[in-house]
Amino acid sequence: METAMHAAGQRQSRLDVMNFLNEISSDYPDAISFASGRPAETFFALEAWLAQIPRFARHFAERRGKTLEESFHLLAQYGPTSGVIGDLIAQQLRIDEAMHCTPEQVIVTNGCQEALELAVRHLCSQPGDVVLVRTPCYIGITGVADLSGIELFAFSADKPEQYAAALINAVAAAEKSGKRARAVYVVPDFDNPTGTVLSRTTREEIIAVCFSKGIAILEDNPYGMFRYEGNKETTMFALDDRGCVIYLGTYSKTICPALRIGFAVIPDALFGQAGSGAAFIQGLARAKSFISVNTSHITQAVVGALLLSEQCSLRKVIAPALARYRENRDTMVAKLSESFAGLRDCVEWNVPAGGFFLTVKLPFRFALREAEICAAKYGVLVMPLSFFALDDRHDFFVRMAFSNVTPELIRSGIERFEHFVSDYLDEHNAET
Amino acid sequence: METAMHAAGQRQSRLDVMNFLNEISSDYPDAISFASGRPAETFFALEAWLAQIPRFARHFAERRGKTLEESFHLLAQYGPTSGVIGDLIAQQLRIDEAMHCTPEQVIVTNGCQEALELAVRHLCSQPGDVVLVRTPCYIGITGVADLSGIELFAFSADKPEQYAAALINAVAAAEKSGKRARAVYVVPDFDNPTGTVLSRTTREEIIAVCFSKGIAILEDNPYGMFRYEGNKETTMFALDDRGCVIYLGTYSKTICPALRIGFAVIPDALFGQAGSGAAFIQGLARAKSFISVNTSHITQAVVGALLLSEQCSLRKVIAPALARYRENRDTMVAKLSESFAGLRDCVEWNVPAGGFFLTVKLPFRFALREAEICAAKYGVLVMPLSFFALDDRHDFFVRMAFSNVTPELIRSGIERFEHFVSDYLDEHNAET
Repeated sequence: METAMHAAGQRQSRLDVMNFLNEISSDYPDAISFASGRPAETFFALEAWLAQIPRFARHFAERRGKTLEESFHLLAQYGPTSGVIGDLIAQQLRIDEAMHCTPEQVIVTNGCQEALELAVRHLCSQPGDVVLVRTPCYIGITGVADLSGIELFAFSADKPEQYAAALINAVAAAEKSGKRARAVYVVPDFDNPTGTVLSRTTREEIIAVCFSKGIAILEDNPYGMFRYEGNKETTMFALDDRGCVIYLGTYSKTICPALRIGFAVIPDALFGQAGSGAAFIQGLARAKSFISVNTSHITQAVVGALLLSEQCSLRKVIAPALARYRENRDTMVAKLSESFAGLRDCVEWNVPAGGFFLTVKLPFRFALREAEICAAKYGVLVMPLSFFALDDRHDFFVRMAFSNVTPELIRSGIERFEHFVSDYLDEHNAET
Repeated sequence: METAMHAAGQRQSRLDVMNFLNEISSDYPDAISFASGRPAETFFALEAWLAQIPRFARHFAERRGKTLEESFHLLAQYGPTSGVIGDLIAQQLRIDEAMHCTPEQVIVTNGCQEALELAVRHLCSQPGDVVLVRTPCYIGITGVADLSGIELFAFSADKPEQYAAALINAVAAAEKSGKRARAVYVVPDFDNPTGTVLSRTTREEIIAVCFSKGIAILEDNPYGMFRYEGNKETTMFALDDRGCVIYLGTYSKTICPALRIGFAVIPDALFGQAGSGAAFIQGLARAKSFISVNTSHITQAVVGALLLSEQCSLRKVIAPALARYRENRDTMVAKLSESFAGLRDCVEWNVPAGGFFLTVKLPFRFALREAEICAAKYGVLVMPLSFFALDDRHDFFVRMAFSNVTPELIRSGIERFEHFVSDYLDEHNAET
């Protein structure tokens, strides 16, 4: 832990955020954790889901005119790089997300992260190709870019409605540096880490900008089905009639992370060019064949079986978790109001309409050192927002994940966090 | 198929070999296939293996002081990037391969391909870093290099005992071009595509060369347990006391490919430097966290449960398949002798002591066009060895996989192939 303490005050290497999370969680196993945005594991029904695999094997057999035994043999074998559940995924997207695509537009991947990695590397194949991203952002995109030596151009949009204008500036900044913006990474619904949502107008503006500039939109949507109130926004993929949106999905939050099943949906006609979607997906599949060959049939079968038994909608499956997450968000917001009643002039937070996260703004910088103190002395784990930032404008913010904790733990955890903040302010005031 | 026919005579892009295999298999579904080296699916017991998952969940629970229910919840969740079955893999390697390593030296990956990709990218992180490889070679290594823009330096070693000297020349050639050889890819046991085995002396020579030059050896061993006669050679990892050998393993052949479970074992002290192994594995894990987060617990649990129920040895599990593969090899060799009795002066083949492949040398060039004719007119699929080659010295060779066919199909398939060869020779002689 010494090394970590020495590094306090410096900007944490983006690649080390995951490490920090793992280390702090194992160093303080008894601390209440708002650090990691894991789905609530109490709703996982892994044994029951595994028991349904034969249902998918029968479906697989019927489609291919095989016996059930042959189907199990084929499922245990190597298989198509793009996967074997594209048809069921396409149906689920139609029912749950009002999205229209064919099975051939879907490539199944080892979690959404692989889809993101494949898409970014494929889009940015030439020197000078760069990715645009709003800061703060999910560390999966910064990690992919860092790993592959692809430059990121970050833009700020503290209010969602500033997004399109900020994007235009970022495109111009990239061009001015002699770079070519090839993609923009967007989480339009309840993004990690801020929990904000882009309006339909903003989504349409982004699509218009990107179409005019030939920039692919990587729409990552892990949290869209977890809305606690208000009307669902239409996905950017569904809004897009120009072929700029590549949709990235995952079953890690709706079913469970251990599946490691995600996918990408590629527009039929990328940027309006007939046939270009098929060529793009072939390129992704070719790359995937040398990274992971194909995604496990076993875990695809778990997803496939559940989709078959649920008529290709996950709404009923997620209902208990959704109710819990709503309760957790309400509990966290209520407890923040109660605990920080005396500090309302200097401590703020947002109330997200969905997703797993909210952010708290403090009247002082909250970095690695402060996160360590919170964990060691107060028994609560939270994430500095600066870990997700590509600028220094988020150093006063903290990300709080409320997905994998109980209401009771939320109340104690926020109390502990308030003690830390009060003590910090007292100490700081005493010093000055 | 027209495009493919037009391309005849040109060297096939290495990245397109997988594509060729998929296309030709789906274009000629009734042809007898010696093209793909898949394990025999008749021995897969997927349902039985899945039914054993609770055994691993209990083991997982005991190790962590959890209840079985908590264990299933944790298994359905995100997990450590390096995996959760390193202890069982280390034990299996000790029992089945006489290899000694700790669980901390093991990183579990999405099939061996991901281990290879991570290791190559990590080793070749600087411009000018190159990989050495004997030609012909497995397309997984050429694919990884092509994808990441890493240059390969190929060397020939038609006889295994020429290997070390050829390697030294390749190192020198790399140095002369101002490049730095960082790794050599080696399949010492029954390699794909040639089926040859390196002797202990050759293995030791390679280790000595690589240690002196600071070159990591990527020892890929998918076929080592499939030996049909003679004594098992010691793995290079087990021979190595200088920390140059990174061992790459897979359960795709010993259990089944649908698991997509492979792994890398890193020397404790890479090139003799204490602590360097741990730093290397951390580097791989960090990269993996941005490619696939972690490997599925579900498929790890299948492997873990089977290892637990088999006292960490797969010898009994593979015994029926091993017997079949031996019979298949014997059948193929016997049928080749019978069918080509009249052509023994101009058609040759090797008799591998293990693995899934043998190669046949023809008195004429066998390329994409000839493979197409074999498939379309003779109903037999075989792979030109040139698909695996980085030079033009293997254009007269054909790779025959005998793993996923029955003895009956082998006899018919070889007969068909002999008809093709005879007809080709007749036609060619008639022309001249």
